[in-house]
Amino acid sequence: MAPILVDNSNSNLPERDNYVNNAFGYVKNPHLDLLSEDILYHFDLGTRTHDLPSMFGDVKFVCVGGSPNRMKDFAIFIQQELGLDGDGSDITDICAGTDRYSMYKAGPVLSISHGMGIPSISIMLHELIKLLHHAKCKDVTIIRIGTSGGIGIEPGTVVITDIAVDAFFRAQYEQVILDKVVIRNTQLDQKLAESLLRCSKEINDFPTIIGHTMCTYDFYEGQGRLDGALCSFSKEEKCEYLQKAYIAGVRNIEMESSVFAAMCHLCGLKAAVVCVTLLDRLQGDQITHSHGVLTEFQRRAQKLISSFIKKQLHMCT
Amino acid sequence: MAPILVDNSNSNLPERDNYVNNAFGYVKNPHLDLLSEDILYHFDLGTRTHDLPSMFGDVKFVCVGGSPNRMKDFAIFIQQELGLDGDGSDITDICAGTDRYSMYKAGPVLSISHGMGIPSISIMLHELIKLLHHAKCKDVTIIRIGTSGGIGIEPGTVVITDIAVDAFFRAQYEQVILDKVVIRNTQLDQKLAESLLRCSKEINDFPTIIGHTMCTYDFYEGQGRLDGALCSFSKEEKCEYLQKAYIAGVRNIEMESSVFAAMCHLCGLKAAVVCVTLLDRLQGDQITHSHGVLTEFQRRAQKLISSFIKKQLHMCT
Repeated sequence: MAPILVDNSNSNLPERDNYVNNAFGYVKNPHLDLLSEDILYHFDLGTRTHDLPSMFGDVKFVCVGGSPNRMKDFAIFIQQELGLDGDGSDITDICAGTDRYSMYKAGPVLSISHGMGIPSISIMLHELIKLLHHAKCKDVTIIRIGTSGGIGIEPGTVVITDIAVDAFFRAQYEQVILDKVVIRNTQLDQKLAESLLRCSKEINDFPTIIGHTMCTYDFYEGQGRLDGALCSFSKEEKCEYLQKAYIAGVRNIEMESSVFAAMCHLCGLKAAVVCVTLLDRLQGDQITHSHGVLTEFQRRAQKLISSFIKKQLHMCT
Repeated sequence: MAPILVDNSNSNLPERDNYVNNAFGYVKNPHLDLLSEDILYHFDLGTRTHDLPSMFGDVKFVCVGGSPNRMKDFAIFIQQELGLDGDGSDITDICAGTDRYSMYKAGPVLSISHGMGIPSISIMLHELIKLLHHAKCKDVTIIRIGTSGGIGIEPGTVVITDIAVDAFFRAQYEQVILDKVVIRNTQLDQKLAESLLRCSKEINDFPTIIGHTMCTYDFYEGQGRLDGALCSFSKEEKCEYLQKAYIAGVRNIEMESSVFAAMCHLCGLKAAVVCVTLLDRLQGDQITHSHGVLTEFQRRAQKLISSFIKKQLHMCT
């Protein structure tokens, strides 16, 4: 995502919400209801082949993250935390017919992997939002549980995103639609972010903050890393860039939050981004902590989300 | 991808190749040789933990594709085609310690999954190019074997990309580096493309053409689909856009070719993109062919690449 000088006067104007709402709130596509069958290709699910309302009608929370294994672990963890029947062996991949994404369900909680980067999560979100539409789900909260690089904060800190910004620290996401481009709002649900911060204070087990999250299209040159296959800048230029990001309010960097915030905002899905930081980019570029330490870091966001979901379900934590 | 009006006079200038070559040709990063250890985080490999030259020193062909299962199938297929020892059960995931990517090796052929979208393949390419550098590999040919949507051609046609274009039909890739943006060349190796086309003519089993490939950041709105969770345009506007793409020489659409072409070009890796088309986007948006038909389509590109590799290795086909 880089500057394209498009011959299009709309190309840097905020998007007007000229979408048509369908019968159920989340989908905004008048063509969809005209389809005799909707194949959710990357989930290997479809409206003719699967009874989506009975499979997913009770979903109230959708948790998404990059790694299939991590999202399976989370589904097993939340099954235990919610005291649901089953020993984890019954948590099987609903999308087993494809290896594009993995999906697991534990009671009202759906846990889905989205791969790495904006395009990968955007495909998953389109098909998830259609799934929620076909299943007639209501009052759904969606939370991205991710990993990230921190800026000026202790590794292991959990960052709850208030707003996603791009590589130029602007709170916007640009969506190409045919040969036009629209600018989308990347604000996340402020009340949800504050509720999650309160949960973390109650757990009182690891540092948690609310801050801006920078979302990039690239892990190496795009995040100012000196350890990629290509690097044309100095350590000083890198540090100057990351310092500018810190001054702009950025506390962590990842690769999915902007389109996640934009699509959820537009579709009326209550959304949060909760990422643990694996390193402090002001100190280095490589992720050198042991596997055990990194696993414990990743458990932190999962504990926080579990505590939040239990509260929402009026279960004592 | 999307227009950002960056306050930066370099933002739409072609990149000058001001990269420093390292001892081995593919990496262009003077900082890399200063690292005491290089952890290829998303491969779960490293220079201290693994003997990369002995593991990968003999690699001459790298084949990459989105799906882990498809790339494992390809590794088993090429092992048989090259008459190598083993029944396929010895083809195991070299990156088993992570679920970000999968990697398989059959003699001189490495088969790696890259997930979906430009950011996902770019992380894999950075770490692959560093791996080839650490393993001291030379004269490597890299081929993306993918799936795509066709424009105005019969589903099942194999498209060999001559040049990757963006959503505005421009033969360029924009890379954000710190707060600047550079424009990169997306030309692929013309001789390699022609050799692949000749191979296909000899196989004479399925239609194969050379054409432009449009690389987008999004599968739904970004490719003019009417069946996403969000759609604000009409069928007529969609068709007009795809017709414009056809007139501009675009024969298929996928989501990785531009950064693949740009990085390989810059690093001096001989590269090709060979994608089978699963549908004709002028006829519809949904992928409705049976699993069996789609599997046979995907085998076509694999047969072509196998035939090419055998020729290069001076084996009769």
